[in-house]
Amino acid sequence: MKIYTRRGDEGQTAVIGARVSKDDVRVEAYGTVDEANSFVGDAIARMRERDGQKYSDLIEVLTQIQQELFDVGSDLAVVKGKRPYKITAEHVDRLEEWVDRCLQEAPSVKKFILPGGTPVASSLHICRTVVRRAERRAVTLTLNDEINHEARRYLNRLSDLFFALARAANAREKIEDIQYERGREVFR
Amino acid sequence: MKIYTRRGDEGQTAVIGARVSKDDVRVEAYGTVDEANSFVGDAIARMRERDGQKYSDLIEVLTQIQQELFDVGSDLAVVKGKRPYKITAEHVDRLEEWVDRCLQEAPSVKKFILPGGTPVASSLHICRTVVRRAERRAVTLTLNDEINHEARRYLNRLSDLFFALARAANAREKIEDIQYERGREVFR
Amino acid sequence: MKIYTRRGDEGQTAVIGARVSKDDVRVEAYGTVDEANSFVGDAIARMRERDGQKYSDLIEVLTQIQQELFDVGSDLAVVKGKRPYKITAEHVDRLEEWVDRCLQEAPSVKKFILPGGTPVASSLHICRTVVRRAERRAVTLTLNDEINHEARRYLNRLSDLFFALARAANAREKIEDIQYERGREVFR
Ligand code: B12
Ligand code: B12
Ligand code: B12
Ligand SMILES: C[C@H]1O[C@@H](n2cnc3c(N)ncnc32)[C@H](O)[C@@H]1O
Ligand SMILES: C[C@H]1O[C@@H](n2cnc3c(N)ncnc32)[C@H](O)[C@@H]1O
Ligand SMILES: C[C@H]1O[C@@H](n2cnc3c(N)ncnc32)[C@H](O)[C@@H]1O
Ligand SMILES: [Mg+2]
Ligand SMILES: [Mg+2]
Ligand SMILES: [Mg+2]
Repeated sequence: MKIYTRRGDEGQTAVIGARVSKDDVRVEAYGTVDEANSFVGDAIARMRERDGQKYSDLIEVLTQIQQELFDVGSDLAVVKGKRPYKITAEHVDRLEEWVDRCLQEAPSVKKFILPGGTPVASSLHICRTVVRRAERRAVTLTLNDEINHEARRYLNRLSDLFFALARAANAREKIEDIQYERGREVFR
Repeated sequence: MKIYTRRGDEGQTAVIGARVSKDDVRVEAYGTVDEANSFVGDAIARMRERDGQKYSDLIEVLTQIQQELFDVGSDLAVVKGKRPYKITAEHVDRLEEWVDRCLQEAPSVKKFILPGGTPVASSLHICRTVVRRAERRAVTLTLNDEINHEARRYLNRLSDLFFALARAANAREKIEDIQYERGREVFR
Repeated sequence: MKIYTRRGDEGQTAVIGARVSKDDVRVEAYGTVDEANSFVGDAIARMRERDGQKYSDLIEVLTQIQQELFDVGSDLAVVKGKRPYKITAEHVDRLEEWVDRCLQEAPSVKKFILPGGTPVASSLHICRTVVRRAERRAVTLTLNDEINHEARRYLNRLSDLFFALARAANAREKIEDIQYERGREVFR
């Protein structure tokens, strides 16, 4: 197996259905999804280190999300018309169900919370914010090209899920989230 | 509590005082501050894991910084004129004092050092570089719109503080920073 | 030692040979290399935590890479003509040798793998994707200015090395990489 092909040495690269500059917003978009996915891998690794048992349900959810982030990535990598999209509204609905389930585990808050807590929770907040960056890049792509609308909605809801997962993780370890003091009540 | 409102599904979102595209430089700026803040949360989590006692003073400083990064974030989120800014020159002065205090703990160096050392120090170097990214995004925002000048200075000085904190953390664990060999003396 | 000079407070900063805006693509490029380097520092820290012995060869390789990322960074920081470049084709060749050696340790795969596994492997996947971001920024710089071609090739190959390192790390801990299910065979 040879993974380096030297074909990217001139700053151009292959997407599905075309050849573009690595500076292209499309490459930036799925590249950021790939980065987000790596942080999800790290969150899983930390859950396993900490106590696989305690987090087995969340590890399962996150592993499925890793698979789906590849679906998102290939939807963003494909030049329109080249093949059917993979992410559908059902994927987004399922994320919403998970958000609801996770938030039930944690006491409700009215104010912003400091991103942190246990190593697992802090890594979930990192996932949250990197996924939000990926969403912003997908939005930038939208302004330049047609993309799978559901893939973008998926990223939007996924960052909410990471917020919920971080709160659930802290709740499971009996760690209270610290509120942002100088803010007003922002959550309803 | 329902955190997903589905209002961001079309790629637009709310800032304080307006509705903008998620591709907007303002959203990019405070979104990056949020990301930096999550890495600060991770640095704190690692300090607690390693030995809360040994780092209690730094945990306190970093927790205050997490609060202040929300102040920075809301200053960047607010469309000019909508409300008074939160970050002032005094915040920046305090950062400078902390920089001085932390650097005193570590042997002085003349050359660049490799970002790393203990898990705590390496995570502080990550904070340093992500805060620098946030500063660059705040500068980009400045070129497009008026922002709180002190918030940008705050980010600038904060990355210096993370450099100092990383060095202090390694010093506390008796780890010597490795110098960049092929460079010249850059620090005075 | 005073590291804050307050000279960057107005959003301008020094590169080697000029003064530019912090919004400049050049600053973004070496700033991202600095960020990538910090994640490399974290990968090393995790290897040491886990079992320095088991990873001593990889720690050595990664420490050399940290040195070389400063070479890359200074090549990107220098305005053309100001001084000779540091990174050469030989550096890239050596990366390719390391890729080959690392991939031999892991069973070959045909499909994409989920970025993750052990804490060491997941941090190497983070390095992989942040280095790819640095490569994209170097490509953007190329479109605006002349840069050291070999520094860009170095970044390209370095992300392949992190893929190989992540696979080797999992193999050493007898962790099987999970394949992306809904994809086709992509590796030859
Ligand atoms: C997109 C992409 C990525 C994305 C994945 C996006 C996502 N899903 O998230 C990201 C950025 C993650 C990625 C990462 C990597 N990638 Co990549 N990637 C690609 C790329 C461009 C497309 C792969 C893909 O998904 N193809 C989709 C399939 C379905 O497309 P296809 O096989 O061409 O199928 C088409 C046709 O055959 C037809 N078709 C398919 N099936 C059928 C069936 C029928 C019946 C019909 C009629 C037609 C048909 O339709 C398809 C669409 O046109 C390929 C290059 C390329 N153009 O193939 C490189 C490629 C696979 N990647 C490569 C590499 C090296 C990597 C990395 C190791 C790079 C790195 N250093 O990080 C990593 C590995 C990541 C991992 N975790 O395993 C190399 C592999 C080299 C090799 N040894 O063979 C490739 C070949 C690029 C290259 N260098 O030339 N990659
Ligand atoms: C900026 C912002 C962020 C920033 C915070 C910036 C920072 N400080 O760093 C960031 C990016 C971090 C963020 C993150 C999140 N956010 Co947010 N955020 C907002 C936003 C746009 C503003 C919140 C804010 O600070 N308001 C400032 C207060 C002071 O403004 P205000 O309440 O409108 O007050 C105004 C007036 O009332 C008046 N006023 C106030 N007080 C007084 C007093 C007097 C006397 C007078 C006369 C006037 C007056 O002046 C103010 C300015 O106009 C709101 C949407 C919105 N427009 O409210 C969402 C919002 C609060 N966020 C939301 C969500 C979901 C999140 C996240 C969970 C998203 C995610 N998946 O990551 C995270 C949670 C982060 C956390 N750690 O807790 C949701 C909450 C939904 C809900 N359940 O209610 C909102 C409502 C957006 C939405 N979807 O509609 N967010
Ligand atoms: C590029 C750069 C960086 C890059 C490094 C790039 C890389 N290699 O990856 C990055 C982004 C990583 C960085 C980070 C930091 N940096 Co810096 N950095 C610089 C910068 C712009 C250039 C440094 C450099 O490499 N110079 C290269 C040398 C060779 O250049 P030179 O000494 O000017 O040499 C020239 C001439 O003298 C001549 N020359 C040299 N040798 C010879 C020999 C002969 C015979 C002849 C004829 C000519 C000659 O040619 C050279 C080219 O013109 C300087 C500012 C500046 N312009 O010097 C700041 C500077 C060194 N950084 C500074 C700081 C504070 C930092 C950080 C702490 C910031 C932070 N908060 O993160 C970190 C520390 C990082 C670490 N790990 O140690 C400060 C130091 C302040 C101080 N106390 O003195 C400086 C001075 C900037 C400032 N604020 O004014 N930095
Ligand atoms: C909670 C708040 O976060 C902001 N917001 C919404 N989407 C993103 C994103 N992808 N990245 C950063 N910030 C975002 C909006 O201002 C929203 O109101
Ligand atoms: C130490 C050096 O780092 C660069 N520099 C200054 N501010 C930033 C930033 N926010 N991000 C990246 N690099 C920066 C300048 O080149 C400075 O001289
Ligand atoms: C494996 C695939 O990854 C994409 N690719 C190549 N270089 C980069 C980069 N620096 N960042 C993100 N994606 C990249 C191309 O589409 C390539 O085919
Ligand atoms: Mg390549
Ligand atoms: Mg939302
Ligand atoms: Mg400075």
